Amino acid sequence: MDHTWNDKLHEECGVFGICRRGSEGVVAETYHALYALQHRGQESTGMAVNRDGVIRCYKDVGVVSDVFTPDRMAKIADGQIAVGHCRYGTTGTQNAENAQPLVVNHLKGAMALCHNGNLTNAQELREKYEMAGAIFHATSDSEVIAYTITQQRIRCGSIEEAVRATMGIIEGAYSLVIMSATKLIAARDPHGFRPLCMGRIGEDIVFASESCALDAVGAIFVRDILPGEVVVASRRGVEVYPPIRAEKMGLCVFEFIYFARPDSVVDGVSVHEARLRAGRLLAKSHPVDADVVIGAPDSGLDAALGYSQGSGIPYGIGLIKNRYIGRTFIQPEQSQRRDSVRIKLNAVSATVKDKRVIMVDDSIVRGTTSARVVQILREAGAREVHVIFSAPPFRHPCWFGTDIDSEENLIANHHTEEEICRIIGADSIGFLRMEDLPKLCGDRKLPLCIGCFSGEYPVDPPANRSKHKFEIPLNLSETEEKP
Amino acid sequence: MDHTWNDKLHEECGVFGICRRGSEGVVAETYHALYALQHRGQESTGMAVNRDGVIRCYKDVGVVSDVFTPDRMAKIADGQIAVGHCRYGTTGTQNAENAQPLVVNHLKGAMALCHNGNLTNAQELREKYEMAGAIFHATSDSEVIAYTITQQRIRCGSIEEAVRATMGIIEGAYSLVIMSATKLIAARDPHGFRPLCMGRIGEDIVFASESCALDAVGAIFVRDILPGEVVVASRRGVEVYPPIRAEKMGLCVFEFIYFARPDSVVDGVSVHEARLRAGRLLAKSHPVDADVVIGAPDSGLDAALGYSQGSGIPYGIGLIKNRYIGRTFIQPEQSQRRDSVRIKLNAVSATVKDKRVIMVDDSIVRGTTSARVVQILREAGAREVHVIFSAPPFRHPCWFGTDIDSEENLIANHHTEEEICRIIGADSIGFLRMEDLPKLCGDRKLPLCIGCFSGEYPVDPPANRSKHKFEIPLNLSETEEKP
Amino acid sequence: MDHTWNDKLHEECGVFGICRRGSEGVVAETYHALYALQHRGQESTGMAVNRDGVIRCYKDVGVVSDVFTPDRMAKIADGQIAVGHCRYGTTGTQNAENAQPLVVNHLKGAMALCHNGNLTNAQELREKYEMAGAIFHATSDSEVIAYTITQQRIRCGSIEEAVRATMGIIEGAYSLVIMSATKLIAARDPHGFRPLCMGRIGEDIVFASESCALDAVGAIFVRDILPGEVVVASRRGVEVYPPIRAEKMGLCVFEFIYFARPDSVVDGVSVHEARLRAGRLLAKSHPVDADVVIGAPDSGLDAALGYSQGSGIPYGIGLIKNRYIGRTFIQPEQSQRRDSVRIKLNAVSATVKDKRVIMVDDSIVRGTTSARVVQILREAGAREVHVIFSAPPFRHPCWFGTDIDSEENLIANHHTEEEICRIIGADSIGFLRMEDLPKLCGDRKLPLCIGCFSGEYPVDPPANRSKHKFEIPLNLSETEEKP
Amino acid sequence: MDHTWNDKLHEECGVFGICRRGSEGVVAETYHALYALQHRGQESTGMAVNRDGVIRCYKDVGVVSDVFTPDRMAKIADGQIAVGHCRYGTTGTQNAENAQPLVVNHLKGAMALCHNGNLTNAQELREKYEMAGAIFHATSDSEVIAYTITQQRIRCGSIEEAVRATMGIIEGAYSLVIMSATKLIAARDPHGFRPLCMGRIGEDIVFASESCALDAVGAIFVRDILPGEVVVASRRGVEVYPPIRAEKMGLCVFEFIYFARPDSVVDGVSVHEARLRAGRLLAKSHPVDADVVIGAPDSGLDAALGYSQGSGIPYGIGLIKNRYIGRTFIQPEQSQRRDSVRIKLNAVSATVKDKRVIMVDDSIVRGTTSARVVQILREAGAREVHVIFSAPPFRHPCWFGTDIDSEENLIANHHTEEEICRIIGADSIGFLRMEDLPKLCGDRKLPLCIGCFSGEYPVDPPANRSKHKFEIPLNLSETEEKP
Repeated sequence: MDHTWNDKLHEECGVFGICRRGSEGVVAETYHALYALQHRGQESTGMAVNRDGVIRCYKDVGVVSDVFTPDRMAKIADGQIAVGHCRYGTTGTQNAENAQPLVVNHLKGAMALCHNGNLTNAQELREKYEMAGAIFHATSDSEVIAYTITQQRIRCGSIEEAVRATMGIIEGAYSLVIMSATKLIAARDPHGFRPLCMGRIGEDIVFASESCALDAVGAIFVRDILPGEVVVASRRGVEVYPPIRAEKMGLCVFEFIYFARPDSVVDGVSVHEARLRAGRLLAKSHPVDADVVIGAPDSGLDAALGYSQGSGIPYGIGLIKNRYIGRTFIQPEQSQRRDSVRIKLNAVSATVKDKRVIMVDDSIVRGTTSARVVQILREAGAREVHVIFSAPPFRHPCWFGTDIDSEENLIANHHTEEEICRIIGADSIGFLRMEDLPKLCGDRKLPLCIGCFSGEYPVDPPANRSKHKFEIPLNLSETEEKP
Repeated sequence: MDHTWNDKLHEECGVFGICRRGSEGVVAETYHALYALQHRGQESTGMAVNRDGVIRCYKDVGVVSDVFTPDRMAKIADGQIAVGHCRYGTTGTQNAENAQPLVVNHLKGAMALCHNGNLTNAQELREKYEMAGAIFHATSDSEVIAYTITQQRIRCGSIEEAVRATMGIIEGAYSLVIMSATKLIAARDPHGFRPLCMGRIGEDIVFASESCALDAVGAIFVRDILPGEVVVASRRGVEVYPPIRAEKMGLCVFEFIYFARPDSVVDGVSVHEARLRAGRLLAKSHPVDADVVIGAPDSGLDAALGYSQGSGIPYGIGLIKNRYIGRTFIQPEQSQRRDSVRIKLNAVSATVKDKRVIMVDDSIVRGTTSARVVQILREAGAREVHVIFSAPPFRHPCWFGTDIDSEENLIANHHTEEEICRIIGADSIGFLRMEDLPKLCGDRKLPLCIGCFSGEYPVDPPANRSKHKFEIPLNLSETEEKP
Repeated sequence: MDHTWNDKLHEECGVFGICRRGSEGVVAETYHALYALQHRGQESTGMAVNRDGVIRCYKDVGVVSDVFTPDRMAKIADGQIAVGHCRYGTTGTQNAENAQPLVVNHLKGAMALCHNGNLTNAQELREKYEMAGAIFHATSDSEVIAYTITQQRIRCGSIEEAVRATMGIIEGAYSLVIMSATKLIAARDPHGFRPLCMGRIGEDIVFASESCALDAVGAIFVRDILPGEVVVASRRGVEVYPPIRAEKMGLCVFEFIYFARPDSVVDGVSVHEARLRAGRLLAKSHPVDADVVIGAPDSGLDAALGYSQGSGIPYGIGLIKNRYIGRTFIQPEQSQRRDSVRIKLNAVSATVKDKRVIMVDDSIVRGTTSARVVQILREAGAREVHVIFSAPPFRHPCWFGTDIDSEENLIANHHTEEEICRIIGADSIGFLRMEDLPKLCGDRKLPLCIGCFSGEYPVDPPANRSKHKFEIPLNLSETEEKP
Repeated sequence: MDHTWNDKLHEECGVFGICRRGSEGVVAETYHALYALQHRGQESTGMAVNRDGVIRCYKDVGVVSDVFTPDRMAKIADGQIAVGHCRYGTTGTQNAENAQPLVVNHLKGAMALCHNGNLTNAQELREKYEMAGAIFHATSDSEVIAYTITQQRIRCGSIEEAVRATMGIIEGAYSLVIMSATKLIAARDPHGFRPLCMGRIGEDIVFASESCALDAVGAIFVRDILPGEVVVASRRGVEVYPPIRAEKMGLCVFEFIYFARPDSVVDGVSVHEARLRAGRLLAKSHPVDADVVIGAPDSGLDAALGYSQGSGIPYGIGLIKNRYIGRTFIQPEQSQRRDSVRIKLNAVSATVKDKRVIMVDDSIVRGTTSARVVQILREAGAREVHVIFSAPPFRHPCWFGTDIDSEENLIANHHTEEEICRIIGADSIGFLRMEDLPKLCGDRKLPLCIGCFSGEYPVDPPANRSKHKFEIPLNLSETEEKP
């Protein structure tokens, strides 16, 4: 249903950058863009502002409106270039130190780096750098990227060449926005795992994870950054480097199913339309005889409308979500998870009472949320509840920047569809078929990464899978000192 | 569109009460109920808990999740009876002192009072009490009600009789939930301006402004409190007093149009259905040749679906609202209001591009928001934008608990429909017809107060209108000392 | 030793008022005065500012620098008259509602009231007012005073006459500073329990609990307000009403021993000199053969110097207090109290090692602190530790505004001096003799209240002693509803 | 007078470490030790705790009681080894990123580093490391030390050998406490600029900047760490490495005059006694005919007592300091500095009125504070005010960890003693004579650094003095990108 619940996947991050050539002012734009990208990460946020070549960084744990209060905004000196970042929130460990932008000082000056994605060879590179005496402050991949760029910068004539050289060294998923004293650089990994696009406000250039952030700052969409491409914006204009090619490409399909905002267009495909298509495909593959189709707010609404369009069954508003999110108090009892759903969702009895209801949701992780929603609908008088998911069942880990739950918690890993139906108490359930996934993009033949459903990835997972993530909270080492 | 914007009406409050007879625990229920009633007031919130006859009160400025943090919740001793309140938020002056419950100590013990509504004779009563030496701490009507009950309590044999006697003295709109050492009392003014309903959890009784709060605590809806009725719950059971009759009755019609949650049922009418009906009535009274009907989130969605049903024009998802509300930073510039809309709303280009769009919103106050939304839709490619409001134009003040803007700010007070259409830049606009207002309730013949549209009220407005509100912020007097 | 520890007496409050006639600005002065009076109360603080007859109040739980942050100060509109208050801190229940100034609106306008002291007939008066329909919001005496003034104001021609009439009705200890729309009024109870003085800044008048607050705002000391006196300052000048006489008078002797700041002069007596005298008197009454005299910082330092002067034994700096007070973390263990002393105090080994040490402290309550300090001195190498208290042993309750511990916790109530000496581990101990108390004032023959030592008070304690305090936390009633 | 004023020198830091062998628990001890060392730094504080080889770090801007609230303390998992740090506060730029401990991950595991002092070759080393690809997150010397240890660790067999090798590379002032997965290491630079001592709690070892921190945790003082020495504590016991010798040594003399707490013993000299000696030396070198000697609280009190002892003139308590420090509101006006003194200090009229007063203070920086205090004493009636400083005049910068004001702000740099006397409005002034500085240590012949008075330092200042500090706030670079 929604990214405010634990029973959900988490995106890693959202990135943004702006380089003014014509007008002045980048702070308000970065704020508005981050606010528009907030759905991609709520744990921490930050921005780095370049004023006449001097980079200042402001970042903290919290959502944009908490971190950048009017008081703090008033104290930020405006500038000509800025980058911004929001980071996802897992429960529990919130590390201010992992907040981005990551600003580092190296031989040739300062650099601010924003990263969305996950490397597959971060651990190897880190060990190599440590052998040469490097020290690491945090646990994120981003520090590895920063070191690689720094190392390459010593050999290369410019920061953008260092970034391109870095792309031959680091592997995995990365959409980067990097700021130096005079330049703003966007780079996307050759597989194109995570989205990244470019916009224009008059003469000024912006980069963002999603096009909804361009809208938020009044920018015109120019184009998506191509997989493997490096684009440099500076006072002198825009320079584009020919893309570095990868054997296989694959945009994360979950951007269409859940992560991206429906008003965004990713690699030429409208997210809203992709979800409408998912609903229409499901109306064909999983027809149900029912009275009304409702969506689980907010992420199931588009696919529900599509199902209604495809099936001819009327669309209804059947679930109301309490908008006053925030850290809500939950009774410390057995019924905990039930209440976390109940406090946020209520059924519209007028819509579902005595009706055969089709509820469309985006996906199922643990199943606890779905079970609770089915129960709420039945309590409101629904005669039948059929649950349709606009994604196939999750079965495999993601190595490329999605915080998928551990396999033992994925209900689809241990249960057949019939069992899941029984567990969540539905009258029937349906999943999007694997073969329908490519059709979400309509006419466009976008290469997609569907590894979390199929187990096959565009790039090899890390050899030593258990080592692949040094997801030790910052400033914490489990390694004994080695002699 | 939404109560987070200034360009909106504001409800005064939400009230809740619970009296346990069978089981234990009232704090968590009150929390969840207030959270469900949060849309009725975001300025301040509070609860008073009765533990073995001792009343303790906790209240502060802020929304429920801010005021009742897990830490604070852990410190509240649970009890057998509780009342809760959330208060609306006007911009600027947030007074912790006006927060409710209002807990006072009088001759016969302590009393906690929660009030939704507005009196028309508060000023007269206040002056009368002051002549007798009474002192007032705050500016709200509620202290006047408390004094009246206290005065009557001296003469009456019980708190409930004092409340009934009070209902013969105070005039205007009030839905009250009152707690004494041993009782929980619900009372609704004889005109029935504001909603109030009763529910049951096993043997335990709850009262709430809206039925969605009953759902939130797992209570079964029993019935609405009738206009003029007093209902008393205690360990000994429930006592009902025959309603005090008024000449004219009138539930605020804006509860259906905007205030109440769509999943609530008010005086027997589903709010969602009332809005669907508004949409269907508008499809007949204001037919438009268009390609898609979209709603302004969230309050325009239901009526938009009704318009689609009534007109046969497909329903679409055309506007996306940023859910990460909170105090957002706004540039201190000319473009301020534009940005406050822009930062919260974006168009789904896939839905509106090259389309003739009907956008359904609930009402128009100043017009600035509507103008901005029309612009956003046009920028996203809409060929035509027709704006349909599910209410008639605002033209008159409200004396009964709605914070309507001053008349000079109401666009409909100074402009014809044609002018409004031009001002907001729409291709056409339509308002709900006055004669259709009673039809919102379907078969039920509910007497409604439509004074803000018609200027005729079920009860006379205060004689000296300028004095009617002593809305001086607390602890602030503009009166010179009188000799 | 210090008011930051529980093992200490607590003063009730500090009051301040300023009335400008010549110049402008009262907010900064009130802030600085409250900061100077902070030792008289750390639980809550507030100020009410009168700008052209309109009174605005700002108060909260916390010390002055926490409540009046630069941000908040910037938002307070300055005015011509202001009153301020700081309230004492008991452990645990901190009630924002009991914070003062108490601002009330009555028939003739608004009034802000600041009170230091405690009434003996508050409960009777409260019951009488409640019989007439009055309601009470809080538990402090101050609301009873406000009601009495309001009641009298109806009959009297001016606020100051109402205050004088009130002084014939309320009984006990009170130093009041009251602000109306146009006047600033100081009033002191006829017994003169609590200090109150007047100062002047040019043409402007200030009132304060202690003269140190006059110094803090650059005011010149004019004179003490006499017991029973009412002084009115307004734009028209200063008016003085002849004092109301009481049979017995008695300034609280503990103001000299501990409460007041040593740089204050109270009723013509320098607090510092009173403490020097206490030390000299003790040097005579309790001579000890020792090498060094040290004081327990900060309240024992003056008396220690006096003891040194009187005895000829060198004065030394033997204990260092950590100035970084604040809510310190304490291990939740047995050793709790030990640590709370240890974390704040350390011995100067160079001063006490191998020495026979006389340590002078102001008084002993439970004895735990003294025991701990003796131990710290011994650990630092003191050969002998003799403890001298500059007050007689506490044995009786205080009804006049001192938060004395319950009798069962007073070590002197259950133990002889020999036992106390053994319990705290001293080599010898000494108390100030009762007969020496009057000598603290030197040549001035000040009538003193020494009830906490003698059990005899200038005014009768409340008849029903258990009822005398309705010290139920605000919004909390233990009374069942009475039929 | 006091480190809460700007018109004062600032110490850089305080360090602490504990290694348990016998008992359990290091968190509470670190808290209490940091609280005792708070006077050495109030900007930020932190601790790193080693639990079974895993290091977790907690640090933030603020004083100990603000950063380590009871809530946060409750969440810190206890361990076997810990290090703690408090950092000084300059006005304005408070950088969370410069807070220590600095925890870094390198090839051989994690390391937490706490540093007091300042390097003279940090800039050179930093440039060298950057040439090799190193990146820096912050601006402090400490990151340079961490890199050097990391580089040496690759070549050395153990962390302690790496530390010793590092001591041959880094130059300047440093007292270090370093924690690895299994060891706690203390190291002091060969010149011995900053204090560092060792204590024992049973079998457990602690290191601290000052002995007062040993007292705070109940540790017994063992000995000072020698200049150039490395001491390693682990479960296996304590290992001591022979000191690395420097040509010249010099403990900062200002530790005795102002920085250290009077209850500390530094390199065998009691700080309290050193100050008494300063007072006695001044009584001889600057005899004044006066009636009373008072100290400026708190740092002038000890020397004032010494002056009294040396001169026979009675010691008095003449100035009272408001203990409720915290960020106080200051009027944004011309009179700013006057008020910042006035709000904190008041004279005891009883002590100074009509007296010839000698006021002893520790030192003079800008002179504004002294001028203000003289004025306060005169206003309180002092007939004469003679100001005696227990240090010679400041004339030179400090390169070794003291935040001395820029030379143009040092009053003694531009004015003769006579001029200073006139500027501060004193009747006479006196400074400690240069030749008396060595006598502060009594019989001990401690080599002292008196460079800030003499301009001669035990080690050469950095060649390029303007470059010596890269005191650019974190995440901020003024260098343009270099091609």
